[in-house]
Amino acid sequence: MKRDKLIFIVFGIAAIVVGLLASSVVDRKYEVTVQKISPMGEIKDFEADNSKWAKNFPLQYESYLKTRDGASKSDQLEQDPALVILWAGYGFSKDYNAPAGHAYAIEDIQNTLRTGAPKTAKDGPMPNTCWTCKSPDVPRVMAEIGPEAFYKGKWASRGHEVTNAIGCADCHDAKTMELTITRPALIEAFDRRGLDINKVSYQEKRTLVCAQCHVEYYFKGKGKYLTFPWDKGLGVEDMEKYYDEAAFKDWTHKLSKAPMLKAQHPGYELWQKGIHGKRGVSCVDCHMPYAAKGGVKFTDHHARSPLENVNNSCQTCHRQSEEELISNVNSLKKTVKDLKVKAEESLVRTHLEAEHAWKNGAKKEDMKEILTLIRHSQWRWDMAVASHGGYFHAPEETLRVLGTSIEKSKNAQILLERLFGKLGVATPIKLADVSSKKKAQKYIGLDIEKLKKEKEEFKKVQVKKWMKKK
Amino acid sequence: MKRDKLIFIVFGIAAIVVGLLASSVVDRKYEVTVQKISPMGEIKDFEADNSKWAKNFPLQYESYLKTRDGASKSDQLEQDPALVILWAGYGFSKDYNAPAGHAYAIEDIQNTLRTGAPKTAKDGPMPNTCWTCKSPDVPRVMAEIGPEAFYKGKWASRGHEVTNAIGCADCHDAKTMELTITRPALIEAFDRRGLDINKVSYQEKRTLVCAQCHVEYYFKGKGKYLTFPWDKGLGVEDMEKYYDEAAFKDWTHKLSKAPMLKAQHPGYELWQKGIHGKRGVSCVDCHMPYAAKGGVKFTDHHARSPLENVNNSCQTCHRQSEEELISNVNSLKKTVKDLKVKAEESLVRTHLEAEHAWKNGAKKEDMKEILTLIRHSQWRWDMAVASHGGYFHAPEETLRVLGTSIEKSKNAQILLERLFGKLGVATPIKLADVSSKKKAQKYIGLDIEKLKKEKEEFKKVQVKKWMKKK
Repeated sequence: MKRDKLIFIVFGIAAIVVGLLASSVVDRKYEVTVQKISPMGEIKDFEADNSKWAKNFPLQYESYLKTRDGASKSDQLEQDPALVILWAGYGFSKDYNAPAGHAYAIEDIQNTLRTGAPKTAKDGPMPNTCWTCKSPDVPRVMAEIGPEAFYKGKWASRGHEVTNAIGCADCHDAKTMELTITRPALIEAFDRRGLDINKVSYQEKRTLVCAQCHVEYYFKGKGKYLTFPWDKGLGVEDMEKYYDEAAFKDWTHKLSKAPMLKAQHPGYELWQKGIHGKRGVSCVDCHMPYAAKGGVKFTDHHARSPLENVNNSCQTCHRQSEEELISNVNSLKKTVKDLKVKAEESLVRTHLEAEHAWKNGAKKEDMKEILTLIRHSQWRWDMAVASHGGYFHAPEETLRVLGTSIEKSKNAQILLERLFGKLGVATPIKLADVSSKKKAQKYIGLDIEKLKKEKEEFKKVQVKKWMKKK
Repeated sequence: MKRDKLIFIVFGIAAIVVGLLASSVVDRKYEVTVQKISPMGEIKDFEADNSKWAKNFPLQYESYLKTRDGASKSDQLEQDPALVILWAGYGFSKDYNAPAGHAYAIEDIQNTLRTGAPKTAKDGPMPNTCWTCKSPDVPRVMAEIGPEAFYKGKWASRGHEVTNAIGCADCHDAKTMELTITRPALIEAFDRRGLDINKVSYQEKRTLVCAQCHVEYYFKGKGKYLTFPWDKGLGVEDMEKYYDEAAFKDWTHKLSKAPMLKAQHPGYELWQKGIHGKRGVSCVDCHMPYAAKGGVKFTDHHARSPLENVNNSCQTCHRQSEEELISNVNSLKKTVKDLKVKAEESLVRTHLEAEHAWKNGAKKEDMKEILTLIRHSQWRWDMAVASHGGYFHAPEETLRVLGTSIEKSKNAQILLERLFGKLGVATPIKLADVSSKKKAQKYIGLDIEKLKKEKEEFKKVQVKKWMKKK
């Protein structure tokens, strides 16, 4: 009877396993049902409080909150002190960290030394335009007063109004949940190019909602009107020409006195030049791919590098192992870094040599061509690296642009060498030691400790007040 | 009865169609059967006459013969006169055409001005090593006398022995038909790197048979021993270091006097750096993909650009349309060309300025660093472009290398500018007009008409004799 007993036990176990499986299926069905029968709560138009959307979209909201996870915010100036010299006289030389997630947007802009420590609404280095990409409060306020009025005035004047970090209402219509373009600058840029942004496909919108912010832009005129410089095209040379013809500069370089351009984060423009862009793979496909939980498929709102999520992003199309795919990306990164470092070294030398020329009696007309070469060289370098992902989105274009950056800064050095000859200055010039963040910031005359202290005071007083009003 | 008649007609037509289809199937089966029952003819070891292999492998041979089709042989010096200056003092400045197919190998090397017009077996500019990649006669003769004896002596001394164009015995064993490495240089290069070429997979062999010739190589020592400079690695910088430590130069530049390196056709090395190489896609997969004829699947021996055969090559893996795939490749080509042209312009200027420095009293020690920069800059440019397909095989590496080429030639120009100051030479230097092949060849002192005339005489007398002996 031993055998009968064994069969009995096996059957018993099998029954339990089947029962558990069935229960799991029922569970999932239950979750789906709950989701389906939950009444949709009313969300008011331009609702900027992301948590208000959470009741209707718990999975999306839950994943969005993860954009607070694992942000290194590592100090880029520490890691690459050349940046301090390249941005001398501009905010980025004070403070520049690795990008953190969407949910950090408000506290990051409050905390960075770049926005200064304004004591009143009329104080500080930055205009209100700086808020544009930081919060769903922006479309809310813009809907009331229009973009022109929004951009005007100092950044401190709207700190009390813009308090919710990038979230739902930046890309979604509160009534229909449809993807929607909330920022006028993108719509206007399309318009000037004769394109109607309302006539794009759903798949294109999955890129364009990101292109509201992850683009090159500038603050136009006295009203600091947010504008994309796309009228002549989206290429590096097209935008350079646009800026040259507009005689626009972001700032005057503190050492070389060159009229500089700061590339912002031209992710959209570079993506277009690469193979993923050409194949119509959208930003969302890789940075916010579909996920499943409790039987429900949803868009993962934990916007992040696909390298942290290879199985849901890359491997949807690519059959290689995670290890191989990551190694391919790292190989591109290494290749691009080689030229990037060369471009930076050359630019640092050029700025310092130009400074030396001014100090030794160079005239404005001696420097004109040199300064234009510096402007163009740094613009190209910055365009190649500022969007971070360029080395992957469009490695060929990124490398091409870095190559032309090197060509131009070297051409400036040739002219400087000639000028030194004319001025009777001995060459090669012995360059100052700017090999660490500290040394470089000291060289360009920044008192970082003072700035930090002022910032702490600002956070204690102003920011506290702003966030209370919320 | 009209309807019955119609049905009758339709049935009749259907019967004919079925009959035709059946006949086609039978036909194909017949072809396959014929192929299978044809007795394999004996082919002797190292059989260099490709037509002798044709009886056993008619489809392969027939497709091989197509390598004579559509060769443009377009004049690259005409299209890009900078090349004449870059190669001044070296054979390539005389004559350089777009590559033609394998079946042209012998007549091309006989016809090019680069091999000169030797009148005797001891005459002429090139050694026998030049034959190494041109013919299946080479492994045949090497099997008799060994590689060392083969390489020795002037190119004209073996013209009567090497008469069959690249073909079957270059890559196949006559008895087993297995892919086989017939050229010692590749085996030796693997050996020096501690690798056993006999232990590679079949798929790797589908690349390595091509890597016998489509690589960077040089003629080592007085015996002009064919050698691959891979001992330190296959990267551009690795090989540059190898050559520097060996104090090797291919020639002394006629204008700048720089100790130059000529990159040959480093297709294999660059392929490794790109995504197709990393994925293990072999040369044969794209350049000689499978084809089918008469129900028989065979390797298409019409080795050519995959762009002429997108459906059998690219589309085996890529699902995009032919039009889209070709446009992607052309976009890479355009991106790389932008930096290539900049690298060439910069190098031309550097050679001409260096020439000017010599003419104005520059000393050897003034020029040392400048000439090293020129050597390295041109090596990198040449490595990036000489294999033709680099822009596609490894666009990122190609662009990186071009970027470093520009950096180095510009650094040379900075030093030249300093030197001109020291020599009291006014700058900028007005460069000679070398904007056409004719002007450039005249500038570097070539009498092309004379060379052409001598070549014609050589063909009438020597080549006729050589080919008769066949």
